[in-house]
Amino acid sequence: MAPAYSEGVTSPPRTRLTVDRRREQLLDAGVGLFAARPYEDVSIDEIAAVCGVSRGLLYHYFGGKRDFFVASIRHAADRLRDVEPDPELPPLEQLRVGLRRYFHTVAEHPGAHAALRRVAAGDPEIAEIIEERRQAFVERVLAGLPRAAGESALAAITARAWIGAVEVATLDWIERRSVPPDAVADVLAEALIAAMVAAARFDPAIEIPAEVVGSVR
Amino acid sequence: MAPAYSEGVTSPPRTRLTVDRRREQLLDAGVGLFAARPYEDVSIDEIAAVCGVSRGLLYHYFGGKRDFFVASIRHAADRLRDVEPDPELPPLEQLRVGLRRYFHTVAEHPGAHAALRRVAAGDPEIAEIIEERRQAFVERVLAGLPRAAGESALAAITARAWIGAVEVATLDWIERRSVPPDAVADVLAEALIAAMVAAARFDPAIEIPAEVVGSVR
Repeated sequence: MAPAYSEGVTSPPRTRLTVDRRREQLLDAGVGLFAARPYEDVSIDEIAAVCGVSRGLLYHYFGGKRDFFVASIRHAADRLRDVEPDPELPPLEQLRVGLRRYFHTVAEHPGAHAALRRVAAGDPEIAEIIEERRQAFVERVLAGLPRAAGESALAAITARAWIGAVEVATLDWIERRSVPPDAVADVLAEALIAAMVAAARFDPAIEIPAEVVGSVR
Repeated sequence: MAPAYSEGVTSPPRTRLTVDRRREQLLDAGVGLFAARPYEDVSIDEIAAVCGVSRGLLYHYFGGKRDFFVASIRHAADRLRDVEPDPELPPLEQLRVGLRRYFHTVAEHPGAHAALRRVAAGDPEIAEIIEERRQAFVERVLAGLPRAAGESALAAITARAWIGAVEVATLDWIERRSVPPDAVADVLAEALIAAMVAAARFDPAIEIPAEVVGSVR
């Protein structure tokens, strides 16, 4: 009997996954492997065994171990970037909701963050992926502020510093899980707004909408 | 003729420095060397040449290259830790003044921070020094808040996340120097207070003094 939520559509068997879905599964497995152990310690045979596919299929999709590794890290970074703002909401709410989503994603995929952290040091190609994603996150954060803020050096350093806070909070939270993720998300959201409000006092190019200023505290 | 500020006391010649001052000079040189190049690339002969001392004296003070390296890193971390709060000031002012002092120290010793950053990854002994100093900084930050805050898991993660922001802001500032250091210091101070005020809403164990809440914005 098909479960109620399948709405009569039969799921394809695991071996007949679509190419995209299969690729994603392989990358999820890669993230898990590279989160747990250094690159050198993971063999292509082990990857194939964990994924339940042949070495040939892995090479077909990814070319080789190094390419699979880079694709896995990119995949981990993408997972953590999914903080799409909802333009219908007021700016502080957008930020808060986005951060809450982010921490829920982290809770579901703690390995993704661990993998990024492990490999970040000393590999220029990986460092570039991480820097690129960090920059995209900064732009997303600044997008909630008016145009001028994006051109302010003080707004930019404030945003990047705040990303540093988010990264430390993420690691800390994964390690201890001692507080509700929503609390951390809201604390970070308010910290950013307060920082930008303070920055606006130094740099007239930063214009904070009145409703954002009013929403702090 | 002795300069006016010497008040008649003749400075000792460079070769007759006190042991402490000599040690400090050697460590400053070490910080500069290790900030610029990896550990493996710096030879003990080069260190001796840069410091204008014999290899023998270096060994006498520090035992060997590795010990000299660790002492240099500890020295760099100490330089950056000098953010003594002034208990006479109100809490937000203490934080602001401490951070301004910190950024002025960074401006004077940019190599200290670069050295820490370069070596942080992959060396457990160094990682421990940095973690220990980070913890001391967190405790100093939390000391400005009432006692209960130090026992709150949310206050602790908020403080550590904020240190992450300070670290990123420091690197960013050293690299670009595009904004006045006092502006960055003040923005960070306000961000921490706002974050703690937000955290206090989730965790009743965090009590923020009324004058701190009132001082935000």
